[in-house]
Amino acid sequence: MRTLIEGSGLPADVYSAKCPTRQVLDRIAGKWTVLIVDALADGTMRYTDLQRRIEGVSQKMLTQTLRELETDGFLTRTVHPTVPPRVEYALTDLGRSLRTPIAALRDWIETNINEIEAARRAAAI
Amino acid sequence: MRTLIEGSGLPADVYSAKCPTRQVLDRIAGKWTVLIVDALADGTMRYTDLQRRIEGVSQKMLTQTLRELETDGFLTRTVHPTVPPRVEYALTDLGRSLRTPIAALRDWIETNINEIEAARRAAAI
Repeated sequence: MRTLIEGSGLPADVYSAKCPTRQVLDRIAGKWTVLIVDALADGTMRYTDLQRRIEGVSQKMLTQTLRELETDGFLTRTVHPTVPPRVEYALTDLGRSLRTPIAALRDWIETNINEIEAARRAAAI
Repeated sequence: MRTLIEGSGLPADVYSAKCPTRQVLDRIAGKWTVLIVDALADGTMRYTDLQRRIEGVSQKMLTQTLRELETDGFLTRTVHPTVPPRVEYALTDLGRSLRTPIAALRDWIETNINEIEAARRAAAI
């Protein structure tokens, strides 16, 4: 059965421009979100660990994406009062439940990459 | 076992900025890609059908995303010589294999939307 949106009572539908699921899709379906959630799948990480793990992410994009994921309830940010302060990120229960579909997407890409590259080469001829 | 990239022989790794899988992640992990692949899961669609099905997509974004998905070998574009010409899109075998992870992501969002909305409201207080 389709989930009903609390408040409006309308069925959840990502195809509907005004459904809150569309906004969430926009948030989740991003390269950096996928990589952050996947990187945190194994446990807590510090900001600098994430920056090192996710090659090519700018400080601006990492900070912004982490903040959005915190606002949406996917991860927690804990500041330890050390000198310098240690900032750690961890998935919430909601974030952990997102690991499976995200890992499936990553696995699919890593499995099919040679076929995709071949299709691209064929299209470029 | 990790897939090895043809040519370089390096293991596929979306965390590596230069790995071709990263580019594919960037392409696939987009709201419009997810909606187009999901919409075509049930079969061939015309351009106008897609435009109607995916509320809020602009002609520019729909055309651009369809072209990218064609270049990457995820779908075929067939022009029927009618007056006016009828243009139809269908998933290739590669595109069909992407349906499962994409449907899992959509299902996850539609199932968890009320919890996500509650987390957002809590964060906004």
